[in-house]
Amino acid sequence: MSNLSAILNDIDTHRERYLEELKELLRFPSVSTAPEHKADVRRCAEWLRHHMNSIGLPTQLYETEGHPILVGERRDAPGKPTVLFYGHYDVQPPEPLERWTSPPFEATVRDGKLYARGAADDKGQVFTHLKAWEAVLRHDGALPLNLKWLIEGEEEISSVHLPDFIAQRREALAADYVVISDSGQLAPGLPAITYGLRGIATFEVRVQVAKRDLHSGSFGGAIANPIVVLSKVIARLHDEQGRVTVPGFYDDVLPLQAWERKQFAALPLDEEELRDTLGVPQLYGEAGYTTLERVWARPTLELNGIVGGYGGEGFKTVLPSWALAKISCRLVPNQDPSRIGALVSDYLKQLCPPTATLEVRYLGGGKPVVVNTESPAVQAAKRAIETGFGTPCVFIREGGSIPVVAMFKDLLGVDSLLLGWAQRDCNAHAPDEWIGLDDLHNGIRTAAALLYEMAELGKEEGM
Amino acid sequence: MSNLSAILNDIDTHRERYLEELKELLRFPSVSTAPEHKADVRRCAEWLRHHMNSIGLPTQLYETEGHPILVGERRDAPGKPTVLFYGHYDVQPPEPLERWTSPPFEATVRDGKLYARGAADDKGQVFTHLKAWEAVLRHDGALPLNLKWLIEGEEEISSVHLPDFIAQRREALAADYVVISDSGQLAPGLPAITYGLRGIATFEVRVQVAKRDLHSGSFGGAIANPIVVLSKVIARLHDEQGRVTVPGFYDDVLPLQAWERKQFAALPLDEEELRDTLGVPQLYGEAGYTTLERVWARPTLELNGIVGGYGGEGFKTVLPSWALAKISCRLVPNQDPSRIGALVSDYLKQLCPPTATLEVRYLGGGKPVVVNTESPAVQAAKRAIETGFGTPCVFIREGGSIPVVAMFKDLLGVDSLLLGWAQRDCNAHAPDEWIGLDDLHNGIRTAAALLYEMAELGKEEGM
Repeated sequence: MSNLSAILNDIDTHRERYLEELKELLRFPSVSTAPEHKADVRRCAEWLRHHMNSIGLPTQLYETEGHPILVGERRDAPGKPTVLFYGHYDVQPPEPLERWTSPPFEATVRDGKLYARGAADDKGQVFTHLKAWEAVLRHDGALPLNLKWLIEGEEEISSVHLPDFIAQRREALAADYVVISDSGQLAPGLPAITYGLRGIATFEVRVQVAKRDLHSGSFGGAIANPIVVLSKVIARLHDEQGRVTVPGFYDDVLPLQAWERKQFAALPLDEEELRDTLGVPQLYGEAGYTTLERVWARPTLELNGIVGGYGGEGFKTVLPSWALAKISCRLVPNQDPSRIGALVSDYLKQLCPPTATLEVRYLGGGKPVVVNTESPAVQAAKRAIETGFGTPCVFIREGGSIPVVAMFKDLLGVDSLLLGWAQRDCNAHAPDEWIGLDDLHNGIRTAAALLYEMAELGKEEGM
Repeated sequence: MSNLSAILNDIDTHRERYLEELKELLRFPSVSTAPEHKADVRRCAEWLRHHMNSIGLPTQLYETEGHPILVGERRDAPGKPTVLFYGHYDVQPPEPLERWTSPPFEATVRDGKLYARGAADDKGQVFTHLKAWEAVLRHDGALPLNLKWLIEGEEEISSVHLPDFIAQRREALAADYVVISDSGQLAPGLPAITYGLRGIATFEVRVQVAKRDLHSGSFGGAIANPIVVLSKVIARLHDEQGRVTVPGFYDDVLPLQAWERKQFAALPLDEEELRDTLGVPQLYGEAGYTTLERVWARPTLELNGIVGGYGGEGFKTVLPSWALAKISCRLVPNQDPSRIGALVSDYLKQLCPPTATLEVRYLGGGKPVVVNTESPAVQAAKRAIETGFGTPCVFIREGGSIPVVAMFKDLLGVDSLLLGWAQRDCNAHAPDEWIGLDDLHNGIRTAAALLYEMAELGKEEGM
C-alpha cells in the first residue's frame, strides 16, 4: 500500500482547500421539505455534479417527482468488488434561526469545529468520501475497486422517491457492498462502526366516544371521556418495570450476547453527563438493562404523539368526542414489524372498555438489522478507520432505523457498512449543527484507506 | 290581568311579523371570537339599538375594549321591583359550514323549526323578551315593573369585559332580580326553570422530561416518555366505579335531597334515545347515580384536552419533551373552586414519578349555584310559563356553569331566574342550530306574563 501512504500525505497537504470547498457546498440551503427552497436544492445538486465531474467522478443528475438524485460510477478494476456509496445532499430546516450562533448557511469555524446546517448530516460526511476519491484519482488515475455512488436529495423527507428509483435500476446499481457515512462516533477519539440498527413498527390509535364534541357541562359525567379512556389504555402498555405488556412482544427477541453486553459495558458512557445533556430528572427504562442496552438492543414501545380536545392557550369546556395517539415500537432482531403490528393492534383493542370504540391503524415499519462484526467487510472497515484516525474503532449499535439500509437489502440484496465521523452531540436536526475539523480530516483519510481495504474483499460475500 | 289577555292576543296576532324581524337579527354574523367579524358584531349591536329604540326601549351602546354592550332601562313603576334582563347578541362560529343544511346566517324555516346560528343561543331567546315588552308597551304605554336590560356581545368569549363593566356601574344596574333566557326546556312540551348550576375549576397540567424533543430511535427506552407519564397520571384520577380519586374531593358535596332524586327520576329522560343522539356505545358515569343525577348534581373531573409530540398526518419519530392536559372539575354545592383547585393540584403532583417533572396551573373557576324552588320569584316564573306555554313547568338543573349568574351574585348581590325555550338537541355551538317556532311564540307569551307576575313580588326578596 505504498500508494495509500502518498495519498494520505496528499490529503494532509490539501486539508485547507478541502475545508474551503466544503464551505461552498454548505452554503446551499438545500432544505428538501421546504417548497420555497426547491430551487436551492437543485442548485446544490448542480454544484455537486459539476464539482464531481471536475475531479474525475462522472456524475449524472436524475430527475424525480421531487428533488434530483446524483448517480455515477467508475469501473476501474475488473475482477475487484463493486462498492455502492450512498449519501444525501439535502438538509433539515434550520429553524429556529435565532438559536444559531452563526448563520446556518454560512459555514463558520469555531474552536476546531465547523458549524453549518448539513456539516454533519450529511453533506460534510459525503464530502469526505469525494475528497478521498479525488486524492486517489490524482495519484493513481484510477480507483482500486469498482465504485458507484448515489447521492439523493430527499433523505430528510423519508426518501420518498428513492425506492422506485432503485427498483427501476437494479442492474445499474448492483454492488457487492454498500457504504454509508451518515452515522457517528461513540465519543471524541472513539470512531465507530455501527453494526446494528433497531427496526420500527408505527401505529395510530384513535378512541371515539360520542359522534361529535359536546359541552362538558351538559354531558360531563354521563359518558366516557375519550382522553381518559385513551390514557387508561396507554397506562397499561408498560408494567412497573418498564417492560412492554403486549402479549408475545418479546417472543422473538434475540437475547443480547454475552460478548455484546461485556463490550457495551466497556464503552465510555457517562450517564450523569447524558442526563445533564438531555436535561432529564433521571434516566429510566426497562429494568435489568443498561442505558446502552436499552437504546441499542432492546425493543421499546414509545408514545410519539397525542391529541384530543382543546390543547391551545386558555381553556375550552369541551368534552371531546375522540382522542388519538401515535405509537412506535423500536424492534430488535428477530422481531418482525408485521407480527408486532398485529400483536400491538390486538392488545390495544382488548384494552378498550365498552364505553368507547378504539381503532388502530398500522402505519408501516422496517426490520431491524445486525451485521456480523467478524465479517471480512466489517474487519476491512475497522482497519481503514485505524489507518485514518490512528486509533482503534469500536463497534456500536444505533437505536434508530436507517430506512435506506433496509431498502438496499430488500431491493439490491446488499448489506450496508455504516461508518461515520459525527459526534453524538453534533446537533443534527437542531441549531448549531457541527462537525469536528479533525474528524473531517480523519474521515477523508479513512475513506481513502477504505477503498484499498475493500479492494481486497471477495465479491458478494455479504456481512 | 285583563291587560295580559289582550297582550297575549296581540302577540298571537303579530307572530309572523315577529318571526320576520328575528330573521333580520339572525342575518348578522356576530361571531365575537373572529377578528374578521368585528364589524359585523358592531352592525348587529347597532341594528338592535335602533330596533329597541323604535319599540320604546331606550338603549345605549357602551364601548368596551372588545365588542359593545347594549344597556337601557325603563323606570315605569315606582315602588315595584326592578328586574335586570341579561342576554347576548354574539354567536359561536358557524364552522364547519359544509355541515349546515341551510346557510347559518340566512335563517330558514323547516318543519316548524327556525334554523340559524344564534336562533337558540341567544339572539332568538333575547328577541322573545323584546317582543313581549314591545307588546306590553303598545297596549299600556308602560311596563308593570321597573326594567333594566344588559345585552352583551362577548358571552361566547367568556364575557371578558363584562365584570369590569358591571363593577363600574353597580348603582345603575342595581336590581331586585335578574332574568336570563339562555337555557332550555327539558323536552318538547316540558318548559323548565333551571334552579341549579354546577360550578367549575379548571387546570392545565404539564409533564416535562427532557429539555428538548429527541429522536425516538436514539433515546427511546432510555428516558421516561412524557405522554406515558401523563397518561399514567390521568389513568389514576378515577377509580373503577367512575369516582374521582382526588383525596377530599367529595368532602363538601351536599348530598342530593330525597325530593330531588324523586323528582329527577320522574322526569322523562329516555336513556336509549340520549345514547343514540350522542352516538355513544353506552352511557357511563359514577356508580350509584342516574344520568340526570350525574350531570346535574354530582361533581366530575373531565379531561378537556391533551397534546404532546406529533399528532398530525402520518408519523414522526419524535420522543417528545413534554405533554400537556387540560382538566376541569364540575362542582356542586357546597364545593369551593379554590379548595378543589388546591386538592387537585396537590394530588396531580403526588402522582408524578421522579423520572419527570409536573406542573399544574390553576386556570380559575366559578361557584356552583342552587336557588330555592319555593321562593316567590321562582313560583312567579312557574306561573308565567304555565300562562305562556299552557302547560306546567318542571324544575331542572344544568350541568354547566353560567358565569354571569355568579357575576351578578358577586357584583350586584342578585339571584338569577333562569328560564329558556330552547330544546336540548338545539345544536347550540354546532351546525344546524335551531329553535322551535311554537317555542319562540310561547316564549314571547311567557316573557309578557313574567312581567306581570314579577310586578307582584317583594323587593330585594332574593330566591
